[in-house]
Amino acid sequence: MVQRVAVIGAGPSGVTSIKGCLDEGLEPTCFESSDDIGGLWRFKEKPEPGRANIYKSVIINSSKEMMSFSDFPPPADLPNNMHHSEVLLYLRLYAQTFNLLPRIRFQTTVISVRQTTNFEVTGQWEVETESREGQRETRVFDAVMVCTGHFTQPHLPLRDFPGIESFRAKYFHNWEYCSAEGLEEKRVVVIGIGNSGGDIAVDVSRVAEKVSCCATFLYFYVVFKKNSDVYEYESTLFPSWTNTMLEKKLNQALDHKLYGLKPKHGFFAQIPVVNDDLPARIISGRVAVKPNVGEFCGSTVVWSLLMEVDVVVSATGYNYSFPFLPSALQAKCGYRLQLYKHVFPPALTSPTLAVVGFIHGFGAINPLAEMQACWATRVFKGLTALLTEENMMKEIEKDTATMFACSERNPLEVHYIPYMDSLSEEVGVRPNIPWFFLGPCTPYQYRLTGPGKWAGARQAILTQWDRVFQPFKTRVVTEPKPDIKHSSKLSIIMFLSGAALLCCIFYNKLHFVSYFSASSFQRSLQLIAG
Amino acid sequence: MVQRVAVIGAGPSGVTSIKGCLDEGLEPTCFESSDDIGGLWRFKEKPEPGRANIYKSVIINSSKEMMSFSDFPPPADLPNNMHHSEVLLYLRLYAQTFNLLPRIRFQTTVISVRQTTNFEVTGQWEVETESREGQRETRVFDAVMVCTGHFTQPHLPLRDFPGIESFRAKYFHNWEYCSAEGLEEKRVVVIGIGNSGGDIAVDVSRVAEKVSCCATFLYFYVVFKKNSDVYEYESTLFPSWTNTMLEKKLNQALDHKLYGLKPKHGFFAQIPVVNDDLPARIISGRVAVKPNVGEFCGSTVVWSLLMEVDVVVSATGYNYSFPFLPSALQAKCGYRLQLYKHVFPPALTSPTLAVVGFIHGFGAINPLAEMQACWATRVFKGLTALLTEENMMKEIEKDTATMFACSERNPLEVHYIPYMDSLSEEVGVRPNIPWFFLGPCTPYQYRLTGPGKWAGARQAILTQWDRVFQPFKTRVVTEPKPDIKHSSKLSIIMFLSGAALLCCIFYNKLHFVSYFSASSFQRSLQLIAG
Repeated sequence: MVQRVAVIGAGPSGVTSIKGCLDEGLEPTCFESSDDIGGLWRFKEKPEPGRANIYKSVIINSSKEMMSFSDFPPPADLPNNMHHSEVLLYLRLYAQTFNLLPRIRFQTTVISVRQTTNFEVTGQWEVETESREGQRETRVFDAVMVCTGHFTQPHLPLRDFPGIESFRAKYFHNWEYCSAEGLEEKRVVVIGIGNSGGDIAVDVSRVAEKVSCCATFLYFYVVFKKNSDVYEYESTLFPSWTNTMLEKKLNQALDHKLYGLKPKHGFFAQIPVVNDDLPARIISGRVAVKPNVGEFCGSTVVWSLLMEVDVVVSATGYNYSFPFLPSALQAKCGYRLQLYKHVFPPALTSPTLAVVGFIHGFGAINPLAEMQACWATRVFKGLTALLTEENMMKEIEKDTATMFACSERNPLEVHYIPYMDSLSEEVGVRPNIPWFFLGPCTPYQYRLTGPGKWAGARQAILTQWDRVFQPFKTRVVTEPKPDIKHSSKLSIIMFLSGAALLCCIFYNKLHFVSYFSASSFQRSLQLIAG
Repeated sequence: MVQRVAVIGAGPSGVTSIKGCLDEGLEPTCFESSDDIGGLWRFKEKPEPGRANIYKSVIINSSKEMMSFSDFPPPADLPNNMHHSEVLLYLRLYAQTFNLLPRIRFQTTVISVRQTTNFEVTGQWEVETESREGQRETRVFDAVMVCTGHFTQPHLPLRDFPGIESFRAKYFHNWEYCSAEGLEEKRVVVIGIGNSGGDIAVDVSRVAEKVSCCATFLYFYVVFKKNSDVYEYESTLFPSWTNTMLEKKLNQALDHKLYGLKPKHGFFAQIPVVNDDLPARIISGRVAVKPNVGEFCGSTVVWSLLMEVDVVVSATGYNYSFPFLPSALQAKCGYRLQLYKHVFPPALTSPTLAVVGFIHGFGAINPLAEMQACWATRVFKGLTALLTEENMMKEIEKDTATMFACSERNPLEVHYIPYMDSLSEEVGVRPNIPWFFLGPCTPYQYRLTGPGKWAGARQAILTQWDRVFQPFKTRVVTEPKPDIKHSSKLSIIMFLSGAALLCCIFYNKLHFVSYFSASSFQRSLQLIAG
């Protein structure tokens, strides 16, 4: 019988894992190597090796209602796209409200996680930790939740940078980037136009003499923050048609071909770049989009012409590692780890180790991690059974090829709706059809019914628009009644939702309802946000 | 016979006035109080009293093809929306190419401009100057061109700020603002959401703890740089219908009501705010839009609640003054100076004094100032006659009420197309109908025919798209052929242009052609720029 659970890391996945354990009556102990919660969202003036690092200007790409935990709606006054300090504030409020902090042992690093000698019988783990003072301790736990994230090990593909060994200009990975300070009047090259690369190019371009950005791999579609939720969730229904429509729309907002940003792939093949500033920085010449760097030579980079540079920032993503885990648990399937639904290693005789938050969501990660944790604790307790090892292996291979948009660039990528559908089905909280008329795919719907049912869920759904509008109310222009235009558009959405519902009943594919529900919420959010 | 012309100021209006004089065989002498050309566009680390000042991050709102002088297309490699340093570079190239610099006496301030005792006969002026060393000199000129601009005298309406006299926080006019340095972690209020106020709020919000912006007067529509040309020139044909369509489109891009930015007036009633960053800063809570400040009290500002602030930036516009001019020449008509077409004081017996660039264009100012200078020199030489004083006075009153969208907020505002039409008619360079099929309302069309005809004009028009596309070609995605979608849209535009032409022939209102031509160029620029 599982009772004591070790949770490794007190970032967003860690705190929601602690909460998941408490909800199931388990006894979590969380080990956090730093002195605070927040993980990625804990801003540090200097990056700390082995820990995620963000830059000063980071603003989250997901809107607050879509990135919240399912039983903890964000305060109405927080902006819809939060600054990192506000995301941390939200996590603090979550941890305080559910009294999670006493479960965390700060400044305690996990050195190793080993199966006990009688693991076959007990499913227990020996967890060895080290305190800041160097004091080591080994304790036995019934289960382990690994919540250490995947933004800790900078990926610097030097073999892709011919000539880099004798390059005289400064170069570093974006993991080291905190702000543009020190880059004033410099000639800067940013390699990689992902979300970090785009943000950093824009950030630096406000002070640098010249910023060029280029990508060694693929290019991404650029979307704006107010639309990012919409696109993040519009990935499932009629993917080809949606893809075409979305690309057309995105190209109306920004001609990706003209701006040198047109990717070789379709919209849903990669996580898009969410960047409000890049187009204006390109049209004003502050950021130049270049082809891949051919070669590094002296203090120049070689495109078709030589260009003198002062600094190269490599925004080339991250590797991942679990130094404390037995290597047998780190087997791979294609580019991704061999984890059943990105959570459970299938080869264990007892399913008492789960990885939480080790995904790159095409959508907000908090609700996904929360659902993973919820599922994991129920598996630990034996309330939900896993498949046989053989079937899990088959599922992993199938998912790698289909549901999870897995690639070398994004081995951890999952699409929000199908992944959430699949987990919530396991947990038994996938909402019933009638509930859909209450509201759309904000995380609260997973608290309407089933295990973990929360009395406040309905109210949270009914008030979600109030929380979306509240931060705009610093200056109210006229009466805050919805105008006729919006009402009529909402009627159309309701009609379409109804039509989708009928389709779903006809095809018995509830999945579509879930999708459509999320999509229509996001669509109406978009309508209302302009 | 006018020969020697004093040009006061070597900003954009000054240099094009020198050029205008040389083109007409006159002898210009330009007095510039600083040590360089550029005026507004000469960035200074510290603002200099009596001179215009810009902030470090300024990027011009007009695109390069629409803000260029009519016989000097900008270099193809310059970005479509230039940084202030590039605008200055363009002005330098202009001055060098036409050898204007030898005509400028730097570090020489004009102290006074007086009519000579025999002005009734000669129309001459005594111009008294002072060198940096304090040496005074008086010379007689046949004519004077006043090119001193209208961004030099900050307007700080303290009477609108109750309690400001005992306010303990720092406050200053945006004229003093150079960069956000020193405002890190401060609580900042920006008063006035015009182009400067919006830019500064965004700029400061990247480092400040909190930025609130509010407006004591009206609010403006927010448009994005890539569209700004389109809207700037879409002001004449069917204004009410265009206004409704534009507002709808602008509200699709940004719900002005939700964001607290909805103005009380229609789109064309005020110069819009061009700002790419403001919406994202509002949705992320970095900038809060507030109602007018009720009161200043201690170190707080009072809205409905008290709010502690550290710094107030007043982006409340500018006054204008001509300390060197006789006061009789500064008579007013309503809110504006009594100047015929914003250039000539009607009361002079000889029209030998002209004010150039003393307008606030709903569109780029360089081509307008150039046309004013061209007209002025032709009037000086007697090639073009002015109306009688009485008729000029009538015209001023009529224009104040109609053509020039004059108001207390914007006494200098003119709409590009009708104003350019009216001046080019006077000069005799308003293009003939057949030319419109060559290209649209970029300034080069005014060099196709009539006085100042330039052999390169046709080529400049035919290559304008190349110069628009060139700065994007840092990474070419595929073959740069226009795709079918654009071609078909361009065909529609051609069809509509043809239809408009027929209308115009029918109504004999050439004015509409000129409008439509500009509009269709801008529309297709917009299509191509995304």
